[in-house]
Amino acid sequence: MLHTVVMAGGSGTRFWPVSRKDLPKQFLSLFGAGSLIQQAVGRCRTLASDDRTWIVTGAAHAVETGRQLPGVPASHILVEPCGRNTAPCIGLAALCLLAEDPDAVMLVTPADHVIQPETEFVAAVERAVATLDRNPEKLCLFGIVPDRPATGYGYIERGEPLPGANRVFDVVRFREKPNLETAQDFLEAGNFLWNSGIFVWRADTIVRELERTQPELIRVLNRISEHIGDADFAETLEREFPDCPSISIDYAVLEHSRDVCVLEAPFGWDDVGSWSALARLHPRDEHGNTVLGQHVGIETENCTIFSSGSHLVTTIGLHDCVVVHTDNATLVAKLDDEAQVKELLKAIEAAGLEEFL
Amino acid sequence: MLHTVVMAGGSGTRFWPVSRKDLPKQFLSLFGAGSLIQQAVGRCRTLASDDRTWIVTGAAHAVETGRQLPGVPASHILVEPCGRNTAPCIGLAALCLLAEDPDAVMLVTPADHVIQPETEFVAAVERAVATLDRNPEKLCLFGIVPDRPATGYGYIERGEPLPGANRVFDVVRFREKPNLETAQDFLEAGNFLWNSGIFVWRADTIVRELERTQPELIRVLNRISEHIGDADFAETLEREFPDCPSISIDYAVLEHSRDVCVLEAPFGWDDVGSWSALARLHPRDEHGNTVLGQHVGIETENCTIFSSGSHLVTTIGLHDCVVVHTDNATLVAKLDDEAQVKELLKAIEAAGLEEFL
Repeated sequence: MLHTVVMAGGSGTRFWPVSRKDLPKQFLSLFGAGSLIQQAVGRCRTLASDDRTWIVTGAAHAVETGRQLPGVPASHILVEPCGRNTAPCIGLAALCLLAEDPDAVMLVTPADHVIQPETEFVAAVERAVATLDRNPEKLCLFGIVPDRPATGYGYIERGEPLPGANRVFDVVRFREKPNLETAQDFLEAGNFLWNSGIFVWRADTIVRELERTQPELIRVLNRISEHIGDADFAETLEREFPDCPSISIDYAVLEHSRDVCVLEAPFGWDDVGSWSALARLHPRDEHGNTVLGQHVGIETENCTIFSSGSHLVTTIGLHDCVVVHTDNATLVAKLDDEAQVKELLKAIEAAGLEEFL
Repeated sequence: MLHTVVMAGGSGTRFWPVSRKDLPKQFLSLFGAGSLIQQAVGRCRTLASDDRTWIVTGAAHAVETGRQLPGVPASHILVEPCGRNTAPCIGLAALCLLAEDPDAVMLVTPADHVIQPETEFVAAVERAVATLDRNPEKLCLFGIVPDRPATGYGYIERGEPLPGANRVFDVVRFREKPNLETAQDFLEAGNFLWNSGIFVWRADTIVRELERTQPELIRVLNRISEHIGDADFAETLEREFPDCPSISIDYAVLEHSRDVCVLEAPFGWDDVGSWSALARLHPRDEHGNTVLGQHVGIETENCTIFSSGSHLVTTIGLHDCVVVHTDNATLVAKLDDEAQVKELLKAIEAAGLEEFL
């Protein structure tokens, strides 16, 4: 049976001041109906009902996760006491799935991406499941066809097509985030895909791979999984999980495995990694501005404006900027400088204004 | 005796969104201790106590004026039912003063200028009063020595010094707001002063001048002044005042009178006509930013930041901008484009958002 595992460990600092420490990106409703985590669960629901849906999140976000996803069983919301990257997160979920369903297939997806249309996503997952039916040992990644020379994503060089599968390919190699020149080469070459962080594989396969490559990690996870269904499971998870090494599933398994394949995803995908995503995902007006909320502008061009509630944001002579208003904080930034939001947050902390983080 | 007449009819749209229709500039405390109107009354208080202080204001601002100036007698707060420029305002005040003091000397001052230091202002008024003692027919203007080729002010070309007076001069002519080239010529010539809109004269003198040049205006004002001290004074003022022609005291009297003299004012003066005044009147930090309120900036230079209450304004890569946050509206504008605030307010009205004006 197919199960959905939603990784919801993100801190979402890049959407400050709308995202905060206690309200990361996956909880925001900036991009379509419902929050990103609600959309993530929703688009998987025809594949795996809520009682086959699992969420892995951090302690600070457990309450909000439960509130936003009332249909997901409380026992399926796995609370990490601290972040240890994706390998422990996925390994823990795999062991939990296997306890309920030894034949479980896992769809692993981040909580905070935008994917459209849902029908294409569902069809792609079904292609991946069909591939696993014939090749149960495979680790299937979703690769996104690049539409620009993005430097912010890892790339996958695809090789030969898998026999009998529909646009599923061997992986020649993983490539780290490239510089612009290399990214342009990748784009022109045509056989490179973005690593979406969406995976489909059998739970027993990924556990076996982790046993092979990360025995220490599996030892810790087994100490936890022994208590699945017990009253002290959550307590054991909280106590033992910090002992996991912090490592990504890519680095722990995928980049070394011969069984990895990449499925060319047919859907629109955006990891909404910064405020400029708002302009990609919402229409622009005749001046190139993307506006959410109340705004009046004079000679304002190519700006992204977000205003919460009934607050009015006004701009005069502003070009290529993002203006974000929230109840207690406002950001005005050149669109080019968004990457500096992290630096800004450090400066806010240094100024003793932690209450705004 | 010297009486103070504070003209408080300003709408202060240029300080939107801090100033609003119901809270124009004179009520704001952006520039030093207390609001501008409190500062204006305060700096005159050693010259004329509160019971010799008069305020002329609009109906919309009468309550706030009374609240901010509890020491000024209610009968001295003259409420114009509509704006008719400065000649009717000054003529009305002159008639009211004469009813209390036939020998009254009027110090007329706008409510919304910044003047520092107070001691120099007091000394200048005393020089003007001394000049009037010797030349009771004179209309004494305060002229400001220009420190830049400003194009937003009227200029006064000064002539010969008045015998026996300390830097009080005949007026050769009034010059309207010049273009930049002419303003630079004025600055270099050295005998041009800015028209500050601050005047000292005998009340009977200005009434006589108005009788000569604006007989229709004086007819209307006399219909009002007949009721001074009566229970129906306020009602009469409200009914009759709209019949006054709308005309400035400069155009009605000063530009045609041979008795005008200009006193070279020794004090610092700023009419705080736009947000850039904030940078002139407050210190800048090492990046050239002027900050009032909570602000954290990354690569932010030559900006003026105002944030109300505990709201945090943050900026990244912003140069030469003003950012103003208030509870229900925010302005982000290039400093060059401040004059467009008026255009912005029209656009806000056109968008049906009058509640923000």
